Amino acid sequence: MQLPSPTAADVRSAATRIAGLVHRTPVLTSRGLKERSGLDCFLKAENFQRTGSFKLRGATNFIQRIPEADRARGIIAYSSGNHAQAAAYASRAAGLAATIVMPSDAPRIKIANTRDMGARVITYDRLTENREALSRQIAAETGATVIPPYDHPWTIEGQGTLALELLEEIPNLDALLVCVGGGGMLSGCALIAKDINPAIRVFGVEPALANDHALSLKAGKPVEVAGSQTIADGLRTPKPGDITFPIVQRLVEDILLVTEDEIYEAMRFALTRLKIVVEPSGAVCIAAALAGKIPGGISRVGLVVSGGNVDLELLGKLA
Amino acid sequence: MQLPSPTAADVRSAATRIAGLVHRTPVLTSRGLKERSGLDCFLKAENFQRTGSFKLRGATNFIQRIPEADRARGIIAYSSGNHAQAAAYASRAAGLAATIVMPSDAPRIKIANTRDMGARVITYDRLTENREALSRQIAAETGATVIPPYDHPWTIEGQGTLALELLEEIPNLDALLVCVGGGGMLSGCALIAKDINPAIRVFGVEPALANDHALSLKAGKPVEVAGSQTIADGLRTPKPGDITFPIVQRLVEDILLVTEDEIYEAMRFALTRLKIVVEPSGAVCIAAALAGKIPGGISRVGLVVSGGNVDLELLGKLA
Repeated sequence: MQLPSPTAADVRSAATRIAGLVHRTPVLTSRGLKERSGLDCFLKAENFQRTGSFKLRGATNFIQRIPEADRARGIIAYSSGNHAQAAAYASRAAGLAATIVMPSDAPRIKIANTRDMGARVITYDRLTENREALSRQIAAETGATVIPPYDHPWTIEGQGTLALELLEEIPNLDALLVCVGGGGMLSGCALIAKDINPAIRVFGVEPALANDHALSLKAGKPVEVAGSQTIADGLRTPKPGDITFPIVQRLVEDILLVTEDEIYEAMRFALTRLKIVVEPSGAVCIAAALAGKIPGGISRVGLVVSGGNVDLELLGKLA
Repeated sequence: MQLPSPTAADVRSAATRIAGLVHRTPVLTSRGLKERSGLDCFLKAENFQRTGSFKLRGATNFIQRIPEADRARGIIAYSSGNHAQAAAYASRAAGLAATIVMPSDAPRIKIANTRDMGARVITYDRLTENREALSRQIAAETGATVIPPYDHPWTIEGQGTLALELLEEIPNLDALLVCVGGGGMLSGCALIAKDINPAIRVFGVEPALANDHALSLKAGKPVEVAGSQTIADGLRTPKPGDITFPIVQRLVEDILLVTEDEIYEAMRFALTRLKIVVEPSGAVCIAAALAGKIPGGISRVGLVVSGGNVDLELLGKLA
């Protein structure tokens, strides 16, 4: 079945649907960041979102949209990270049973946290099993609804709500930077941002070590970059989604690339100057601003800070 | 010369005086903190203040109040920490020359940061020299005005402005918790909080390893606790101030004590759950809430988060 491409109107509907179920996160500014980047930066702080990342927006919108007839059979999500936490949290809030498929070598604390949210956790072997196939098999057996992490209109329109909030609060931006893994957030944010202000310039930001979107845009078709070892674990998705990519092609001006060192430096800057905890994937837009990667002609820029879930061990390595 | 004791009206005047020169910091809430503590907690996030701590309030108010005739001779402050940064920043903002007296073994980065703010840094040997006497000597020679870190009405009334902001935003609090070093913030906040709401219960919070205020309140007079090694370096001040203590005696119900482990746990909670960076001294009120130290009969409580200046090395030790 070919799913319909989402629209800006769908993002607005999603915002109404999830109001009260997700935080309206703050927009932060910083003199220090302005001094360093030369730009007026407006940080949409999704690290303060419930469950610690923007993923709750898409998961909540998706779960609210599951038809009544299917709800009793619950949901399934596959993820070792923020999408799992978000799907477990959102399903509990909606009173739906959740099954989360996680790699058997995921950090115990993440598995425990997911169970604490009332989800059933099924583990799989990363080397020998395919999580997506396993999830589909469980779904076929149980009738549960699979929540894709990015390549689904309901997920995309949910993630777009963060750009809607940002532009309601700070309307006159020259540009918007969004981090890119699979492209769910980037496509959803581009849809609504361009609808509100057709002149706004929208950029994706990804690690140079996970540059599948940059290569794909150049090639004019999805290109795979498998096995990325970037520290930005949320952005290792190997290739753009089938639904997200045409939206990115249509609305996104370019993909900016940041190095691993630039990501670490952005995390340090966030901790020591902004006094906020940002996970590696959430730091790439700040990294682009600090490293002077933002094109000329832009003075007011929105930067997505996508999440703040980071192990204390990693913070120690930044010293 | 006996300085006059400040009043709630002085705190209100200070708020008008420093408006625009300091941030009106946000008030944060957290479901996780409510679940853990059983209380509705409202965090006054002075870690987001310019220079990273509440100290800018007192320093800015003080500098604005220096008489015209004395301004050209500049200011002097002695501190190895947040007060030094605040005094240097506020004097630069006001166009006054600043001399900061710092221990010769202070972290190089702090000395460099203070110089970067345009201040002249004079170092002294902690083991053989008295920083207060040295500062007075320089003041006598140069005519510069000494800015005491806590025991002065202009400092006290400046620090109190944070409680004024908090109670303007969240008027119906049962209690207010304030961390205590010398008592400048505690006395200033108690003055204005009790003026706005005489029924509010005001508590100081200090490390058990630096319990000079707890002992002093019991003894009915200032008691010295010298050489404290608490990780909360901003709260090592050995005894209450002459001006602050009578205010604390009159308006503060009790001093709550937290252990070093409770402080570390509060810092971890702030990093991993609240996604904010809090320095050890700034974490003691959160520690009191998490450790169940807040007396019964209280359900809505204001907690001061006094600052967020912490070395990355220390964050690494929390893992």
